[in-house]
Amino acid sequence: MTRAVVLLSGGLDSAVALAIAREQVGAGGCFAISFDYGQRHGHELAAARRVAGRLGVASERHVVVRVGLDAIGGSALTDTRIEVPKGRGAGGAGGAGEMAHGVPVTYVPARNLVFLSCAAGFAETVGASRLYIGVNAVDYSGYPDCRSEFIEAFERAANLGTKAGVEALARGEVGGALRVCVPLVRMSKAAIIRRGAELGVDFALTHSCYDPVVRDEQALACGRCDSCVIRRRGFEEAGVRDTTRYA
Amino acid sequence: MTRAVVLLSGGLDSAVALAIAREQVGAGGCFAISFDYGQRHGHELAAARRVAGRLGVASERHVVVRVGLDAIGGSALTDTRIEVPKGRGAGGAGGAGEMAHGVPVTYVPARNLVFLSCAAGFAETVGASRLYIGVNAVDYSGYPDCRSEFIEAFERAANLGTKAGVEALARGEVGGALRVCVPLVRMSKAAIIRRGAELGVDFALTHSCYDPVVRDEQALACGRCDSCVIRRRGFEEAGVRDTTRYA
Repeated sequence: MTRAVVLLSGGLDSAVALAIAREQVGAGGCFAISFDYGQRHGHELAAARRVAGRLGVASERHVVVRVGLDAIGGSALTDTRIEVPKGRGAGGAGGAGEMAHGVPVTYVPARNLVFLSCAAGFAETVGASRLYIGVNAVDYSGYPDCRSEFIEAFERAANLGTKAGVEALARGEVGGALRVCVPLVRMSKAAIIRRGAELGVDFALTHSCYDPVVRDEQALACGRCDSCVIRRRGFEEAGVRDTTRYA
Repeated sequence: MTRAVVLLSGGLDSAVALAIAREQVGAGGCFAISFDYGQRHGHELAAARRVAGRLGVASERHVVVRVGLDAIGGSALTDTRIEVPKGRGAGGAGGAGEMAHGVPVTYVPARNLVFLSCAAGFAETVGASRLYIGVNAVDYSGYPDCRSEFIEAFERAANLGTKAGVEALARGEVGGALRVCVPLVRMSKAAIIRRGAELGVDFALTHSCYDPVVRDEQALACGRCDSCVIRRRGFEEAGVRDTTRYA
């Protein structure tokens, strides 16, 4: 049976990536990995646990890896001294916000490189031959580590840098032992939401907001950060009811 | 001024790599990164701090990043249920130990991939254009992530996956913003020790043993694990006095 490791952030995209992985390799083949990386909010990890549970990944198949990216600094998501941008409109070709002007301040240096590397190690440990990551080059074109060229280069490095990879290459298996799957990379947010809805993803379990408001121990989306604006517009365009709880 | 980030484990090789980086970019350009990754012993980190201090890297330029590789498992170095092999002789073409038979149990899945990825993030934050890593493909040929092919593939992925890298590629800089330097990759242990001695490295500060004996709060080398055997033989061949404290 093919085994897959899915990078699960607790956001909408990675929830849909997990649902797609589940459809492709079966629920019994799915493992998940999440990261506690000094992000400002623990809500993402709580959401990742809810999503994993709902989509049939038992807790012993879901690891949370602590990675101290806050020690490295350089991002609004790990450094409270840098403000998360708001209210300028976000993403897309016509956007006036951070997404439209090169790399946003919410970029975390080498984040996906670090996360994929840990996931490659976990894949090797559990014997998985696929990694799924919900990167998207449409709305997140400002993030270099969300593009296909990066993913392909990473896949090669991961195969050359792991035991499973070099053994497969030595047996003549083209590409090595590990394939990195990016099912969402060319999809619009609306298309991702429609695909998730078809696969039964409960979007209310997911958390996308960069700057949530906590009320009665619940994290409510701010509705104004880049991530919220892209998400809200996606539901509108998809014609799917937005069950996000806004502040 | 060129800035460099050096991966510093506390072992002999990375101390020599730092001394070489210092010679090449000057002490003022050197930053260091170490990892707390659930390895069995904290002695390595204590050694990394001593080495950094002695070679002129101020503590604010030396970050220690926590990476929970123990959550991923799969290695004798992070999983106390797996025994560190001993007394079979180690390394080299004629060795009968772990090093001679494919990938050793002390291999940690994707370790250098994860460490280099974090280092690439740190390099981006501090504006460094070089990473130094003391990998060695002579004594550690069993570790896929110590080989040049892997390092080259990683360098490409790191440039495509970071802001600094893609911006340099967009300006037409061949190879991107970051170069990964592996000054020790083709050197024998004896040659590494001779080079370190020339550069004034105090080897007594370094820690290589996989399975140290703690006495009077000092970590003494076991003298028998693969790492100790390779190190001890290196001093003999180099004709340099071995100041390692053995149990």
